[in-house]
Amino acid sequence: MSNLIEYDDASAEVRAVYDDIRATRQTDYINNFWKALAQHPPTLRRTWETLKEVMTSPGELDPLTRELIYIAVSVTNGCEYCIASHTAAAHAKGMNEAMFGELLAIIATANTTNRLANGYRVPVDEQFKV
Amino acid sequence: MSNLIEYDDASAEVRAVYDDIRATRQTDYINNFWKALAQHPPTLRRTWETLKEVMTSPGELDPLTRELIYIAVSVTNGCEYCIASHTAAAHAKGMNEAMFGELLAIIATANTTNRLANGYRVPVDEQFKV
Amino acid sequence: MSNLIEYDDASAEVRAVYDDIRATRQTDYINNFWKALAQHPPTLRRTWETLKEVMTSPGELDPLTRELIYIAVSVTNGCEYCIASHTAAAHAKGMNEAMFGELLAIIATANTTNRLANGYRVPVDEQFKV
Amino acid sequence: MSNLIEYDDASAEVRAVYDDIRATRQTDYINNFWKALAQHPPTLRRTWETLKEVMTSPGELDPLTRELIYIAVSVTNGCEYCIASHTAAAHAKGMNEAMFGELLAIIATANTTNRLANGYRVPVDEQFKV
Amino acid sequence: MSNLIEYDDASAEVRAVYDDIRATRQTDYINNFWKALAQHPPTLRRTWETLKEVMTSPGELDPLTRELIYIAVSVTNGCEYCIASHTAAAHAKGMNEAMFGELLAIIATANTTNRLANGYRVPVDEQFKV
Amino acid sequence: MSNLIEYDDASAEVRAVYDDIRATRQTDYINNFWKALAQHPPTLRRTWETLKEVMTSPGELDPLTRELIYIAVSVTNGCEYCIASHTAAAHAKGMNEAMFGELLAIIATANTTNRLANGYRVPVDEQFKV
Repeated sequence: MSNLIEYDDASAEVRAVYDDIRATRQTDYINNFWKALAQHPPTLRRTWETLKEVMTSPGELDPLTRELIYIAVSVTNGCEYCIASHTAAAHAKGMNEAMFGELLAIIATANTTNRLANGYRVPVDEQFKV
Repeated sequence: MSNLIEYDDASAEVRAVYDDIRATRQTDYINNFWKALAQHPPTLRRTWETLKEVMTSPGELDPLTRELIYIAVSVTNGCEYCIASHTAAAHAKGMNEAMFGELLAIIATANTTNRLANGYRVPVDEQFKV
Repeated sequence: MSNLIEYDDASAEVRAVYDDIRATRQTDYINNFWKALAQHPPTLRRTWETLKEVMTSPGELDPLTRELIYIAVSVTNGCEYCIASHTAAAHAKGMNEAMFGELLAIIATANTTNRLANGYRVPVDEQFKV
Repeated sequence: MSNLIEYDDASAEVRAVYDDIRATRQTDYINNFWKALAQHPPTLRRTWETLKEVMTSPGELDPLTRELIYIAVSVTNGCEYCIASHTAAAHAKGMNEAMFGELLAIIATANTTNRLANGYRVPVDEQFKV
Repeated sequence: MSNLIEYDDASAEVRAVYDDIRATRQTDYINNFWKALAQHPPTLRRTWETLKEVMTSPGELDPLTRELIYIAVSVTNGCEYCIASHTAAAHAKGMNEAMFGELLAIIATANTTNRLANGYRVPVDEQFKV
Repeated sequence: MSNLIEYDDASAEVRAVYDDIRATRQTDYINNFWKALAQHPPTLRRTWETLKEVMTSPGELDPLTRELIYIAVSVTNGCEYCIASHTAAAHAKGMNEAMFGELLAIIATANTTNRLANGYRVPVDEQFKV
């Protein structure tokens, strides 16, 4: 299991990231993922900055849609931690049970058709190559 | 490469599915994926019925959001055909370049954090287990 | 693309493997996979010996069943070369179109349920832990 | 962890599926996978109907062979629940330890050759393109 | 296929990244990957900055070792573009054919043992949990 | 969970492999992976012989580099057991925390670019096809 760095034991560089996580998310709670990444401060900083920009910067996609996409990747990769944390995040952003059910149904269906397309070695339609 | 079944060469069972695809999508075009699945009619029927229900039935998620989730799975699995066809479908449903850029940025970021969570063997936070 | 080593250009070590492949498969044809692996003779030898033992040694599973399992893995991994070569091998060992259709239907369904099990974070039943 | 819907708490729609699972499998036991899917009844119904048709309908592949293919996908995807439940199902359908050992040996070997084919970027032989 | 943004058609923001790629790699050539990412400038910038820091900043791992790790991920994911570009990069940094052969042999072996560990559901040894 | 075969309960064939593992690694400890594989002796023998040759035979890549490559595959596949055991092995061969941090940063970045290359369907540059 991973070594988790608590705020009180963290370097100034790590604390600065923890502080930004708290300010951005408006909660004092720092989840285990960040405490584990703190073992390698450059990865902690870079990963947080990327996640913050990708998930919270103004854009065409609303915050909940971004979480649904995130879950789709995490479920497909079978990342237990990521499924658990982003499902919680999606619920916090308004995902209800019906939406979660539809989300998993799409993820499951896409995984089905991905294998059928590969298995039958379907040639890409010319019009999709544009 | 796969053997593609054209409408004129298809059995009544297969034609019935092709007709429903055309009616549902309001286009005469049947893409290669379905023509390949027609080699095994039960799979063609079941896959189309599932896809139709999951992607077009009334629900909490709008049609474009469903395509974005679909692309997230297909990109993560590296299914060339699925990426090509569903990117085209998403564009047809209103995805613009900025949205596609944000979508891929989220997919890429989620794949990063999935590996970091696995690599650091991060224990799932108690609150995410609820 | 890969550098393919032809028999006439191969070292004695590589030729010995090519000869065994020909004898085992009772064909003069050496497919590209082996010609590519010949770039690293130890990998060619080890991979062939393993494949030969796993796919042709006497056992509980018949040769065709072994190919179906092989295809299930290759389709799930999306390995184009492996799908193409082992689908050809399965046909040579008696797989008909109906069997191939059932095979892909099972592969597709398993990929669906795999994602649903992960997505819903289903706890393993006590009786399955035995 | 997932919320599991027990029979007594289930809607008529869900109970109908549970009843069919019990009748089809000739056991009263409903495993956790179905109790979790019951959170989204359409997914429960569709997934069960697909699984029932794919795994139990008359066809070219016998029931045990179907389970072996299922396990090959689940092991390759690393789906813990699916490996546990389908290994149990395969044992119930006659898989002995030797068969399981051969099965995993093939799965392992296929995962090796999949990566070698990708890594060496082996071009698909013309004869495999047919 | 992707829309590739050439230097002359690029915005100032994109040109700045292209210029840094050229300066960092000491070559005028900008490969297709960056020209495709230029369709979404924030992703181009962030991805290049991350790649530059991860692959070229001073650290414990030498440049060639970093490329070998990169190839291991790309081969396992079956990303054709990534395998092709990073194999070229590794050759440029000193990878010889023997090293590439050993690399693929390790990647292939790890993919085998990964599946065996999953398939046999091997419990993690207490001492590995530290 | 898997059935683990202890030395005292093992056949002569299995004991011979256990003895070689102990001699090669200069430790009496046999980890769970091998005890699980012992359920199918041919797989135990073949897997150990392959692992021994690939990871310990003289070559261009040093022992620690080989472990880093191994971890890259295991993290990408999300194989918990393999990540745990090879992270321990890498530490034993000299991997320090900074190196582990850099390793995971590269693995994470490669997983990001793999998805971007797939998602944008980037055509392989001519020069990378050589």
